[in-house]
Amino acid sequence: MGKTLAINAGSSTLKWKLFEMPEETVIASGLVDRLNLPGSIFKVKLANGEKFTDTQDNITNQEAAAMVLTRLKSYGILDHLSEITGVGHRIVAGGEIFKDSALITPEVLDQIKSLKDYAPLHNPVQAYYIEVFQQLLPDAQQVAVFDTSLYTDMPAVNYMYSLPYEYYEKFGARKYGAHGTSHRYVAHRTAELLGKPLEDLKLITLHLGSGSSVTAFDHGQALDTSMGFTPLAGVMMGTRSGDIDASLVAFLAEKLQIDMPAMVDILNHKSGLLGVSELSPDQRDLEDTQDERPKSKLALDMFVNRVVRYVGSYVAELGGLDAIVFTAGSGENGIAMRQAIADKLGVFGVAIDPAKNDFRGEEHIVSPDNAAVQVLVVPTNEELMIVRDVDRLSH
Amino acid sequence: MGKTLAINAGSSTLKWKLFEMPEETVIASGLVDRLNLPGSIFKVKLANGEKFTDTQDNITNQEAAAMVLTRLKSYGILDHLSEITGVGHRIVAGGEIFKDSALITPEVLDQIKSLKDYAPLHNPVQAYYIEVFQQLLPDAQQVAVFDTSLYTDMPAVNYMYSLPYEYYEKFGARKYGAHGTSHRYVAHRTAELLGKPLEDLKLITLHLGSGSSVTAFDHGQALDTSMGFTPLAGVMMGTRSGDIDASLVAFLAEKLQIDMPAMVDILNHKSGLLGVSELSPDQRDLEDTQDERPKSKLALDMFVNRVVRYVGSYVAELGGLDAIVFTAGSGENGIAMRQAIADKLGVFGVAIDPAKNDFRGEEHIVSPDNAAVQVLVVPTNEELMIVRDVDRLSH
Repeated sequence: MGKTLAINAGSSTLKWKLFEMPEETVIASGLVDRLNLPGSIFKVKLANGEKFTDTQDNITNQEAAAMVLTRLKSYGILDHLSEITGVGHRIVAGGEIFKDSALITPEVLDQIKSLKDYAPLHNPVQAYYIEVFQQLLPDAQQVAVFDTSLYTDMPAVNYMYSLPYEYYEKFGARKYGAHGTSHRYVAHRTAELLGKPLEDLKLITLHLGSGSSVTAFDHGQALDTSMGFTPLAGVMMGTRSGDIDASLVAFLAEKLQIDMPAMVDILNHKSGLLGVSELSPDQRDLEDTQDERPKSKLALDMFVNRVVRYVGSYVAELGGLDAIVFTAGSGENGIAMRQAIADKLGVFGVAIDPAKNDFRGEEHIVSPDNAAVQVLVVPTNEELMIVRDVDRLSH
Repeated sequence: MGKTLAINAGSSTLKWKLFEMPEETVIASGLVDRLNLPGSIFKVKLANGEKFTDTQDNITNQEAAAMVLTRLKSYGILDHLSEITGVGHRIVAGGEIFKDSALITPEVLDQIKSLKDYAPLHNPVQAYYIEVFQQLLPDAQQVAVFDTSLYTDMPAVNYMYSLPYEYYEKFGARKYGAHGTSHRYVAHRTAELLGKPLEDLKLITLHLGSGSSVTAFDHGQALDTSMGFTPLAGVMMGTRSGDIDASLVAFLAEKLQIDMPAMVDILNHKSGLLGVSELSPDQRDLEDTQDERPKSKLALDMFVNRVVRYVGSYVAELGGLDAIVFTAGSGENGIAMRQAIADKLGVFGVAIDPAKNDFRGEEHIVSPDNAAVQVLVVPTNEELMIVRDVDRLSH
């Protein structure tokens, strides 16, 4: 292998990371933000710590991709684009088709496009980037890494909804999960850190960020996830409601005299920590104000409660618990939040040693020595998971 | 006290039971079904075992109430209507106003009517029966017993939804719970059977019938419930979906080209065990066919899973578990279902002794001797709870 590029494209952002493989060293990384908007921002960070930031109006998706490659040459990272031998793309929705990451073929690309119903803001733009990089790097192997593939083989009892069965057959109504690339990375890394095969661990991974989800692993596979048909479901999030009585949603739409798409928009963008606190979707803002603002405290307490509830339900499904792992923005950095969650889980043998928990963004075991349940913080690394899959699937 | 009548009125049914108080003996009970429809059915059962059934077209609510009283006289149960000194009415929605059952006053009656938004099919007809019995039994004390009062004082962290806070203030968007009268009865009865104060028990009550819900009791109070703003939420039920991704509901309404009220109707009446099995909402039909019909088995397995998940989440919230109680149609009679649920909860110290579990509709402790967690079956008795409240609140 040579240099491999991980592409993580959102609706208006392009995150990327260039790795030297198989060493897995990061050569450069960057973010293009506010794509197709005035004041687009182009940021790069090199391995030596150098940082560059440019602002330019209305950078298009195609321009963003080209800029990444030309800048890597102008910074002296690449002599020739052909040094990049692999590109991995994070794809949000893989439906039931993609049970693993996949080398990109014309058929795979068509399937990614055809799954746009399940991720209308993501799959089309992610498919577009595949085509752009096929033009820019025609000799590189390209691989699609699906957030959903971890969850395709969950037991039907867990992925099916309690709905007329035909909605599954006709419309694909089932749990697809989300954050799968992150959960997969931290699960494998946890097994390494504990020195045990993942197959032998009953494991619950908590991806707690602006979006949050909980995954239960058993026998090395995802047993269940808090995420649903879409990433609206499950635990409370920064601006997303998580689970909610569907009748209440209909009742509120009627009271507010708005249609369901507008109501779902509120559930996605104005609910969660932001909605309850009436202040911010960011837990740090709520921690800073919780002594004076009861709504800040309520929002934080609800967040902890919703995570605790899911952990309890997955301890039941797993029939035991060997380890629990915190990752993503809040999971890696929320010292008080980690402690609060662990404190509520004592009944399952979960505990955090406060002295071990006093850090942000590092990889540590934080449970007391000889604890019944290992508690870990493992910073997530979706991009590493992506390039590993490129490595594994390329030929 | 003298004779006290418990009235449990649904949208098209009137269930009633007449008790001699304070002895709590049942004198007579009955059901009027298909009210305001062709072929209304009027059934009575007397304490001596005698049963009477009449069919008559279009019995109105007022006629039904009058028939109950005139028949009680014609069967020789009553000499004078004035022997009935109290009437208790089950009321579905008490909002946040009614934290306990309440003696009926003009103000209370107005409040029940004003809460119709929260139970449009129930509160108006239940208020109407109060007025009818005020006319028929002007000297009897009347008491309203709210299904929701058990849940009014749950911690805000449990009853609040992760929505814009103002929806709680403006529209009362919160968890109100349901089946409270049943959960309250079995919780108190469990404490009696275990010889411990309810205040000392961490208790989970499973009301599993055509509607199903789970309540956690701590310090003698409801800590949480699976029921939500409406009785659609929570575990899977006979025809109700229980919890579901709200985005999926919007997606399906769009695919099916129906509006939200029609979609919510499907979630209430065509989902759950019926929807998944494509056969029946009745667990007995599914048990009978599960060997040949994978969808029957899937529906049963999902039901068990959803109950198990809630139990796990409530063990986490309670921080422990002393006892778990089965009640209502399936809970009292579903021998295999009780065993399947308990078998999945072994991690919490829950177990059922198959030899003790082999009965239907009786009051028993079914956990093994010296079990860490007591498992009980307690047939529910909402009507007894209702007349006890009449007794307690009358003067």
